[in-house]
Amino acid sequence: MVIKLHSLNEVIDCIVKYLKINLKGIVKKVGIADAVGKYLAEDIRASMDIPPYDRSVLDGYAVIYEDIALTRPESPVKLRVVGNVDVDEFKGYELRRGEAIKVSTGSPLPRNASAVIPKEGCVAQGDYIYVYNPVPPNYGVSKKGEDLRRGELIVSKGTLLRPWHVGLIASQGIPEVLVYEPKACMFSVGDEVIDVGKVFSPGKVYASTTYLVLTYLKELGFRVRFMGFIGDDEEAIVKLLRKSLNLCDFVFTTGGTSVGERDLTVRALRRLSPEVLYHGVALIPGKPMAIAVVNGKLVMCLSGFPVAALAELEVVLKPLLSRVLGMKFFEPRVIGRLGRRLSTSPNMNYLIRVKVSKVGNEYVVTPLKITGSGVLSTLVKGNGVLLIREGSTGVDEGDLVEVTLLSNVEGGGCG
Amino acid sequence: MVIKLHSLNEVIDCIVKYLKINLKGIVKKVGIADAVGKYLAEDIRASMDIPPYDRSVLDGYAVIYEDIALTRPESPVKLRVVGNVDVDEFKGYELRRGEAIKVSTGSPLPRNASAVIPKEGCVAQGDYIYVYNPVPPNYGVSKKGEDLRRGELIVSKGTLLRPWHVGLIASQGIPEVLVYEPKACMFSVGDEVIDVGKVFSPGKVYASTTYLVLTYLKELGFRVRFMGFIGDDEEAIVKLLRKSLNLCDFVFTTGGTSVGERDLTVRALRRLSPEVLYHGVALIPGKPMAIAVVNGKLVMCLSGFPVAALAELEVVLKPLLSRVLGMKFFEPRVIGRLGRRLSTSPNMNYLIRVKVSKVGNEYVVTPLKITGSGVLSTLVKGNGVLLIREGSTGVDEGDLVEVTLLSNVEGGGCG
Repeated sequence: MVIKLHSLNEVIDCIVKYLKINLKGIVKKVGIADAVGKYLAEDIRASMDIPPYDRSVLDGYAVIYEDIALTRPESPVKLRVVGNVDVDEFKGYELRRGEAIKVSTGSPLPRNASAVIPKEGCVAQGDYIYVYNPVPPNYGVSKKGEDLRRGELIVSKGTLLRPWHVGLIASQGIPEVLVYEPKACMFSVGDEVIDVGKVFSPGKVYASTTYLVLTYLKELGFRVRFMGFIGDDEEAIVKLLRKSLNLCDFVFTTGGTSVGERDLTVRALRRLSPEVLYHGVALIPGKPMAIAVVNGKLVMCLSGFPVAALAELEVVLKPLLSRVLGMKFFEPRVIGRLGRRLSTSPNMNYLIRVKVSKVGNEYVVTPLKITGSGVLSTLVKGNGVLLIREGSTGVDEGDLVEVTLLSNVEGGGCG
Repeated sequence: MVIKLHSLNEVIDCIVKYLKINLKGIVKKVGIADAVGKYLAEDIRASMDIPPYDRSVLDGYAVIYEDIALTRPESPVKLRVVGNVDVDEFKGYELRRGEAIKVSTGSPLPRNASAVIPKEGCVAQGDYIYVYNPVPPNYGVSKKGEDLRRGELIVSKGTLLRPWHVGLIASQGIPEVLVYEPKACMFSVGDEVIDVGKVFSPGKVYASTTYLVLTYLKELGFRVRFMGFIGDDEEAIVKLLRKSLNLCDFVFTTGGTSVGERDLTVRALRRLSPEVLYHGVALIPGKPMAIAVVNGKLVMCLSGFPVAALAELEVVLKPLLSRVLGMKFFEPRVIGRLGRRLSTSPNMNYLIRVKVSKVGNEYVVTPLKITGSGVLSTLVKGNGVLLIREGSTGVDEGDLVEVTLLSNVEGGGCG
């Protein structure tokens, strides 16, 4: 039996159509201090102008521009200092012609003031200052709303919240935000899989893929409930799928997707009468993946091999989440020259681990040896991934390619 | 009063010399499922060979190479199938000349086997197979230790753990790892600062910097204890600094570092008789920062302005942590052409927010308007930062610069 490999675009389009995720169930209100590293589930708009009023950006004297427009060192303008406004004082001062008011950086500007003379730019004498040089209108003034305007979109839905986003949200006084926290159930299939910490015996394999998938989902903000390890037992898999679908909107399994006597996950999944099910996608590594929608919920049966499961998550799950929830993933890319030719089939997608190095002011992209999807060491050798999409007729040595970086490129500095 | 601006290299070198962080107090053992997003505090080595034994990478028949070396389609070699080894079976089979054993992908190789004939490459008939074409020695075989060798360093100390690292660690059966979790105390100084969620009043400012710093430290793996907001009261600051130093190895404050009548944090810090204290660093934005070592512990008095505090954390704290703890930060960089000249002083360091765009196959780096360190919107406008280090004599339009990406560059695809 050979499985048909489906185009990724077709699979994603169709799954999106059938998914009926209850959005209320997958968002959570959190305090902004706990929001970092999560994906924002709402648009955040400025609730106030920043600055909230015209203010000084200098230590000096607020003046009326016209008073000092024509001053010259030979005949300095003399202004009477009628007060002092500190950064958190609102005295409602109103400046009149011939007057100045002492201000600090951040002080609200007195009414009628239209420039600030830096304190180094004048000489104070008793109640008066002498201004020796003119400044342009609005010099030293930060206008109300110049930085942020009330109602302006400041952080958009789907953004991965980093400290600077949180700082910006805090500047608006906003204490809580909605973030995505979809609930997922996950379990691992296979007689051969043993949990970490257990004693190894020949013929067994530690649950590498399980932990990779678990932590991958966590990174994306999922709250994952691990349902356990389960042997090659179709009835038991059906039961666990049912239980998982009752608990969560997203169900992930690892193992049991290849076509073989003991690969039962897909068979079990079919018995749940999914609205749609694909078994086999045009992705290397990761071909035998199954993906289905059951009662509007997503079920992804990932490969038991870590490198293949990772490719399936990167190339199928991420675009799905981006389409359905608007999540924006940080995928820093560089353009580099391919170190050797890659022969690829135009009907397939390839996720290829690469080593990006800096040679002079250029990046060189060297694909790691394409080996079995079980090769663990490629998970950490290399520092980037290259996605070659279906439709491509291969990439030649020396071609420019765009690579997503997973860790730093060695060799700092430029030039 | 003018503060002297110290070279960053001098500051970091000297602080490192005086720091006496108790390493035991800042690491924590966590289950690998909880280790993602944290910085690894130990070297992880392979505890076993992967594969743990020679195994088949094909569904087919394990054979002795010499038996099939000379086979030809016209006169196929006939081998007797003496057994079947499944992926998790260890029957201790020993192959003899003239024999074959059925294997699946992942099956341990029987003793003496030196090649695997893919099942498509032979014809089975009763207890026999006919092999029509020879394969090279070790064809279809993955050798013990070929992927990972026992004792090999697989994830190094200081690595930011991503799902693939966790997967690799899991493959070794390792259930727990040491990660960094330094404890930090933090408080914010300033009569004008109000917490988020409180009612705004003119002259006040929401605690934007507080939350930026809090979440920045969280991202780096710190467990942060927030000690509260405190007014411009030197005695109270001294007390809170003392309390914080009793609780944590790292103390961070925001606000109260500029030279002004009410800027008291640095004065309070001096009263604790630090082993070393710098006030003023050659960094724009971020000049008025103070940094000290008190009883071997780090105290950083950050700016009250978010953009300046962020620069201080990026350019001073990160290199310190990298020197002292070996933390390796993910700083994805691209080389791009500078869109306009930047005039800089050779004695200063600059952290400049930039917008990186893709033009053809090149990146163009446009510095955002350099404005006051209080300008919040620059926190999220732009998608990268450019660090110009002391010693640089300015960068011209068209020069190549290396920029750290903070979010994606718009415009996908290559070519």
